[in-house]
Amino acid sequence: MRKNLFSIILILIFVVIGSVRLFSQDSTVIKNLRINKDRLQERLNHLAEYGKSEHGGMIRVAFSQADKESRPYIISLMKEAGLEVRVDPAANIIGRRQGENPELPSILFGSHSDTVPQGGKYDGALGVLGAIECVQVIKENNIKTLHPLEVVVFTDEEGGLAGSRAMTGTLTPEALDIISHSGKTVREGIQYLGGDVNELEKAFRKKKDIKAFLELHIEQGSRLERKNIDIGVVEGIVGIYWWDVVIKGFSNHAGTTPMNMRKDALLSAAHFIIAVNEVVMSVPGSQVGTVGKIKAQPGAPNVIAGQVDLSLELRDLSKEKVDSLFERIKERASLIEQKTETEIRFKALDANAEPAPTHPKVRELIAESAEDLGLSCIFMPSGAGHDAQNMAKITPTGMIFVPSVGGISHSPEEYTTLQDCANGVNVLLHSVLKIDKKLDRPSEF
Amino acid sequence: MRKNLFSIILILIFVVIGSVRLFSQDSTVIKNLRINKDRLQERLNHLAEYGKSEHGGMIRVAFSQADKESRPYIISLMKEAGLEVRVDPAANIIGRRQGENPELPSILFGSHSDTVPQGGKYDGALGVLGAIECVQVIKENNIKTLHPLEVVVFTDEEGGLAGSRAMTGTLTPEALDIISHSGKTVREGIQYLGGDVNELEKAFRKKKDIKAFLELHIEQGSRLERKNIDIGVVEGIVGIYWWDVVIKGFSNHAGTTPMNMRKDALLSAAHFIIAVNEVVMSVPGSQVGTVGKIKAQPGAPNVIAGQVDLSLELRDLSKEKVDSLFERIKERASLIEQKTETEIRFKALDANAEPAPTHPKVRELIAESAEDLGLSCIFMPSGAGHDAQNMAKITPTGMIFVPSVGGISHSPEEYTTLQDCANGVNVLLHSVLKIDKKLDRPSEF
Repeated sequence: MRKNLFSIILILIFVVIGSVRLFSQDSTVIKNLRINKDRLQERLNHLAEYGKSEHGGMIRVAFSQADKESRPYIISLMKEAGLEVRVDPAANIIGRRQGENPELPSILFGSHSDTVPQGGKYDGALGVLGAIECVQVIKENNIKTLHPLEVVVFTDEEGGLAGSRAMTGTLTPEALDIISHSGKTVREGIQYLGGDVNELEKAFRKKKDIKAFLELHIEQGSRLERKNIDIGVVEGIVGIYWWDVVIKGFSNHAGTTPMNMRKDALLSAAHFIIAVNEVVMSVPGSQVGTVGKIKAQPGAPNVIAGQVDLSLELRDLSKEKVDSLFERIKERASLIEQKTETEIRFKALDANAEPAPTHPKVRELIAESAEDLGLSCIFMPSGAGHDAQNMAKITPTGMIFVPSVGGISHSPEEYTTLQDCANGVNVLLHSVLKIDKKLDRPSEF
Repeated sequence: MRKNLFSIILILIFVVIGSVRLFSQDSTVIKNLRINKDRLQERLNHLAEYGKSEHGGMIRVAFSQADKESRPYIISLMKEAGLEVRVDPAANIIGRRQGENPELPSILFGSHSDTVPQGGKYDGALGVLGAIECVQVIKENNIKTLHPLEVVVFTDEEGGLAGSRAMTGTLTPEALDIISHSGKTVREGIQYLGGDVNELEKAFRKKKDIKAFLELHIEQGSRLERKNIDIGVVEGIVGIYWWDVVIKGFSNHAGTTPMNMRKDALLSAAHFIIAVNEVVMSVPGSQVGTVGKIKAQPGAPNVIAGQVDLSLELRDLSKEKVDSLFERIKERASLIEQKTETEIRFKALDANAEPAPTHPKVRELIAESAEDLGLSCIFMPSGAGHDAQNMAKITPTGMIFVPSVGGISHSPEEYTTLQDCANGVNVLLHSVLKIDKKLDRPSEF
C-alpha cells in the first residue's frame, strides 16, 4: 500500500515536472521562437542551383538528373536538423525526429522538391526547406515535442502527386506507366530515385500513425498580394473537373458559303467560351472555369471549321457548385447549338480530383499562430492541386500560403519575398508546436 | 475598170454567200445546237478514274503522277474534237481550231484538270471536258467560226492558279518555289508535266490575241440550288483579303487566378470571332468573313491562354466594302481589347487577290444564251478564286456556274447532276458562238 502510494506520488511528480517544463517552453522559449531567415534564404538559393536553366528558370522535373542530384543536399540538411532520414518505396524522403512519447502518431509536414519545366525556385522548395528549418530551430532551442515530427519530401508532385498518392494508397499501376517530364515512366523514375515500386504498399501510412499533415506553399495566385495579407489559411484544395468538348459543324468553302448558310464550329466554340466565362462569373464565390485548349479542323483560313475540340475545366471547393455550374453551361450550350446549327458534346474525363477540405481545427491553429506572430491572415481555397489533397484523406490536414508576387508561378518569374517566406515558415513552426500540445484533446482532430 | 467592177461583184457575191451561210447557221443549225450529254457523262467518269482514291474522292493534285497520266487522255479528246494541241511553257494544254479569219484573236475557254486532295470529280473537270465537248459539237455540225477557238487546260489551279498566272505574266519566281501538294515545287512540277520554266515568257498571251475568255465551273456554293436556278452568270471573282491576327493576354494558372484577374487571350479571341461574324452580317450583300484557323498557347486545359493566333479572311467583289468591314472589325477589336485586357494586332498578308469583275457584255451574252436555251439564270459573285480572275486582267472574261448539290465542293461528296452539267456546257457553247458573231462590234468588248 505504501509502495503503491509512493508510485502514485512519483507519477504525480513526473506529471507536474512535465507540465511545468511544457508550460515554461510555452511561455518563454516557444513564444519568441523564430526561424533563421538568412539560413532559409541561403538554402533556397542553394537548392535552386540544381536544375537552374540558362534563362533563370528551374528545370528540376521529377526523376531528372537534377532532381536526383538535389536529394543528397536535402538529406544533408535534414540530418543537420537532427532528423533520421529514410527513403520510402515511393522515393519519398522522410526525416524523423523522435518525440517524448514515441507511441504517439507523428506530426508530418513538408512539400515537394521537383519543379515544372521552366518553373520557379519557391514552388515546393519553400515547403521542404521551411519544414527542415522548423525542425532545425526546434533542435537548436532544445525543444522536446510530445509527438514524433516527420519532414516529408514528396516524389513527383508536379507530374501527378505520385509520392502522396503512394503514401495514401492511391498510386495505381496505370499512374506508374505515365511518362513523366523526365522521359521516364513514373515507375522507372521511382526506381531511379532509389524507391522500389514492388514494395509500394510499404509506403502507405495508416491514419493512426499520423496526427496531422501540414504543408507550407506559395499561393501561386495574387489574392494575398492584392489584399496585402501575410498568410493564407487554406480552407481546402478545390475539386478539379475536366471535360473534353467536341463541337461539330459542317466544313465548307469560306468563299462560296453565304454567311447565313454556315454551320461554323468555330463560331459555335466562340459562343461557348463566352458562355463558360459568363456562367462561372454569374454567381459569387471563388470558383473558376477555363477553356485553355482549342483545336479547329481543318484549321485553314479559307475553310469554315467543321469541328472544334475544346477543353473545359471547372474548379471549386464544393462539388455541388461545380455540378450546378456545369448544368447551366450545358443549358447555354443547348441554346448555342440551336443558334449556330452545330452540335456540342461533353465527355467527362476521369482525371478529376474531388475537393479536399482542410481540417477546421488545423485551420484554426494556423490562424492562431499567425495572430501570435502579428501576421494578418485570411481563409481561402487553394485553386491549385497539392499533395495535401491526398493527405487530407487520411489525416487532419492544413496548408499555409504565402504571397506570390504578381500571382506568378510555374514560371522563372515566380517570386516570394524573403520576409513572406520567413513568415510562412514561422507560422508552420508555431502550428506544428500548437498541434503537438493538443494531445489532451485528440477528439478535436 | 471592167476588171475592177468584176472584182467588186465577186466580193459582193462572196459576202452575200457568207452572210446567207452564217444566217442559215444561226437560224437553223445553231439555234437547235445541243451538246452530247451522254458523251459528257462518260468523259466525266473516265477522267475521274485518274487519281480516284479508295474513299471515292479525287487525289489528282497538280504535278502528281495522276495529274500527269490524265493529260494524254485529255489531249486525245481534244484531238478527237479537231483541235491542234500544244503544251505551253507553263504546261498549260492548249488546243486550237482555226477560224474563218485566222488573223482574228482567239476565243479562249476552258478550266483546270487538277484537284485538291480528296476533292471531287466536277471542280475543273467539267470546265475542261465541257469546253472540249463544245468544240466537238461545233465540228460535228460543220460550223465555221470567224474567230479561232482555243480550249485551255490550266496548270495547277488549286495550288495557286499557276497556269493562268503564267499566261497573264504574273507567275513570279517566288511562286515557282512554292512546294505544291504533290511534294514538288511548282517549278519542278511544270518541268514534270512537259513545260519549260526557262521559257515562261512564251506562255504569256497578249491582249490583242484573245477576244474573250470563258470558264464553266460548278458553283461550289448552294445559292443556285436553294433558289432552284439553272445557271449563275458570274459578276466577278471576289477579292480575297487575309490577315494574321495575334491576341496577347497573360498566361497563368487556371486554378489560382481569379476570374476577374485574368487576361485570357482565348476569351478575347472568342469575342473577336463573334465580332467578325456580326460585322460581316450587319450589312446587306454577299460579302463573307471567316475565322477558320486558331491556335492557343500554351494550349493546356489548366492554363489560361496567353496568346492566340487567328486567321481572318474577308471576301467581296468590292474592295471598298472590304475596307469598310475591316475598319469596323478593328473598332470592335479595340473594344474587346479593353474588355478583356488583351492586345489584338493585325498583320495584312500579301496573299491577297483583288476583285476581278467579269465583262458586262460577256455576262449579257451568257444570260442571253441561257434564256435562248430556256434556262433560268441569276447574276452572282464567285466567292472562290478561279483562273478567270487572272484572265480578266487581259481580256473580256465571263464565267458560267452550275449548281452544286448541297453546296459541297472540295470534297468526295461534290456532285452536280448530269442535266445541270449539260445545261452549263450548252450555255458555254452558245456563249462562244454569240461572242464569235460580235466581230462587227469589237468596241463592245
